[in-house]
Amino acid sequence: MIATPYLLYLGHSNDEIGIKTSRGLAVFRPEICVGEFRHDDCKLTLDLPRMNFEEAVAVGAKTLVLGIANAGGKLGEDLIADAAAALEAGLDIASGLHQRLKDEPRLVDLAGRLGRELHDVRDPRPDIPVGNGKKRAGKRLLTVGTDCSVGKMYTTLCLARALEKRGVAADFRATGQTGILIAGSGVPLDAVVADFISGAIEQISPDRADHGWDLIEGQGSLFHPSFAGVSTGLLHGAQPDAIVLCHDPVRTHMRGLPHFGLPSLTDCLAANLQVARLTNPAVRAVGIALNTSSLSRAEAEALCARTADTMGLPCSDPYSMGVEAILDTLLGTPEKA
Amino acid sequence: MIATPYLLYLGHSNDEIGIKTSRGLAVFRPEICVGEFRHDDCKLTLDLPRMNFEEAVAVGAKTLVLGIANAGGKLGEDLIADAAAALEAGLDIASGLHQRLKDEPRLVDLAGRLGRELHDVRDPRPDIPVGNGKKRAGKRLLTVGTDCSVGKMYTTLCLARALEKRGVAADFRATGQTGILIAGSGVPLDAVVADFISGAIEQISPDRADHGWDLIEGQGSLFHPSFAGVSTGLLHGAQPDAIVLCHDPVRTHMRGLPHFGLPSLTDCLAANLQVARLTNPAVRAVGIALNTSSLSRAEAEALCARTADTMGLPCSDPYSMGVEAILDTLLGTPEKA
Repeated sequence: MIATPYLLYLGHSNDEIGIKTSRGLAVFRPEICVGEFRHDDCKLTLDLPRMNFEEAVAVGAKTLVLGIANAGGKLGEDLIADAAAALEAGLDIASGLHQRLKDEPRLVDLAGRLGRELHDVRDPRPDIPVGNGKKRAGKRLLTVGTDCSVGKMYTTLCLARALEKRGVAADFRATGQTGILIAGSGVPLDAVVADFISGAIEQISPDRADHGWDLIEGQGSLFHPSFAGVSTGLLHGAQPDAIVLCHDPVRTHMRGLPHFGLPSLTDCLAANLQVARLTNPAVRAVGIALNTSSLSRAEAEALCARTADTMGLPCSDPYSMGVEAILDTLLGTPEKA
Repeated sequence: MIATPYLLYLGHSNDEIGIKTSRGLAVFRPEICVGEFRHDDCKLTLDLPRMNFEEAVAVGAKTLVLGIANAGGKLGEDLIADAAAALEAGLDIASGLHQRLKDEPRLVDLAGRLGRELHDVRDPRPDIPVGNGKKRAGKRLLTVGTDCSVGKMYTTLCLARALEKRGVAADFRATGQTGILIAGSGVPLDAVVADFISGAIEQISPDRADHGWDLIEGQGSLFHPSFAGVSTGLLHGAQPDAIVLCHDPVRTHMRGLPHFGLPSLTDCLAANLQVARLTNPAVRAVGIALNTSSLSRAEAEALCARTADTMGLPCSDPYSMGVEAILDTLLGTPEKA
């Protein structure tokens, strides 16, 4: 287990999407986040107290979470130097980057000498089976997206909390590093070996008999040419009864690929339902989730209304507007007029 | 490099599909295969001389190839005991199984003591990039399938040889362990980490400017719930100009999954073209390849004719009938009446 509370690392980041792990923790587990660490050239903030490593240790922080992401997930020299300084100050390190802390001899040596721990949350467990596509007991919802980083984890967490508030048992099943840090378990799906993608999801969402829901965090997009294989295996392993399509309305191209445009919501939903039908022919769409954080409230509400009308599905920004209409559709309660 | 010639291992196998690596080598590289090793309960043969390890060493064999496959790819106790005996007799070992020789301390110790080599051909190179979906120069053909193990590698190899015979430059790009052992290079795609599937294919099939073709070996099936993620990333990374759909007409269910039926050729081709269009909107189907090894010649020819008629594409068994009509469609030469 990773020792808490956390100091959240922003470093030199100036890309809001690149700090989504740190921000996710600050939003969904504020009680275990004592502060943020950022260099002077970082103009982003999580609205947590800014601290250096010594200050964080003084207020009780146990672990520095390297909660930043970048395509390919490399550990740069600046990151290694900061991690080394944090170890020296008395912190353990947790990282969700592809490149592992354990593969950096300088950090391994230093942690060993100081008696500190290095946690690579992208290391999958060793006993993941090949998927078998067999129907499992229980109900499952999967979030899917037009692109990477469009709000799938937030939407999934909001749905889990809202279901619990209605008295319906619901478990968030994490598939990415932020989700794992939030939930305390899950699978780092993008680090799983390709033949085991669907099997990994079958493993984290086994038979359930309590009439509750597994809310499974989606990854990538069927329309992202770098990562669609992950999204495909996730759909097959999840065998979802319901999917919610997530989208960022101001995204102009696929994340990291300026030469790739986004799919339409209609095409994206149809493709996801088609792929999902292989392991659950009864899959249905129950809602659209928009990340409207860059729009005014009036713009956001108008866009959600238009989208709901076009798509014939409830549409909201789960974080700012809730997910009640989506839950009505999911649970079969008639929507209010 | 793996030392040749090879002794091909069948062990206790009694599943024709399970020995496809050994058979692929015997068929496509007979000049480097001196014999086969099988136990008395193995009723299969490659039509190579049956030898024990000492006899193989006596006729010059350098490496025992564990050319058998099983879902999950475990190294059983019997396999380890045989590999140990082969090391003692003087052979190196090459394996394409998921579970690595290098993770078996008994084999590692023994090989170290005897000065022998262990080759895990499923270990991908460490520098695979994330895919970017950018259009590359040159022409590419990808084989796709209704299921795993329906003849994609054979078809790809047959197409490569037939193109070369027509004087067209053609390179076979291997994506599985048998193909890698045959070609001498390639990527063991099912062992690549999920985020890098499409990037791995971009890496093995880079820009080419000689008007030749890359013939890329397909893996899995979009309709196989265990492995469709691999097939999806492969389609996106290959950005194929042309695809050939491979099928085994006597297969009654998806390989390893008795509860899953096969897709129709029409549905399967449509789904593959749809996925491929993300990175190459100009992709087209140029043929159907049937594995007719379990049919009579007359049945096979009738089935190919019917299939060609239904699908509106040339159809043959590449291994027994050649691929000339498929090449005519691929290269734009009018088909003969």
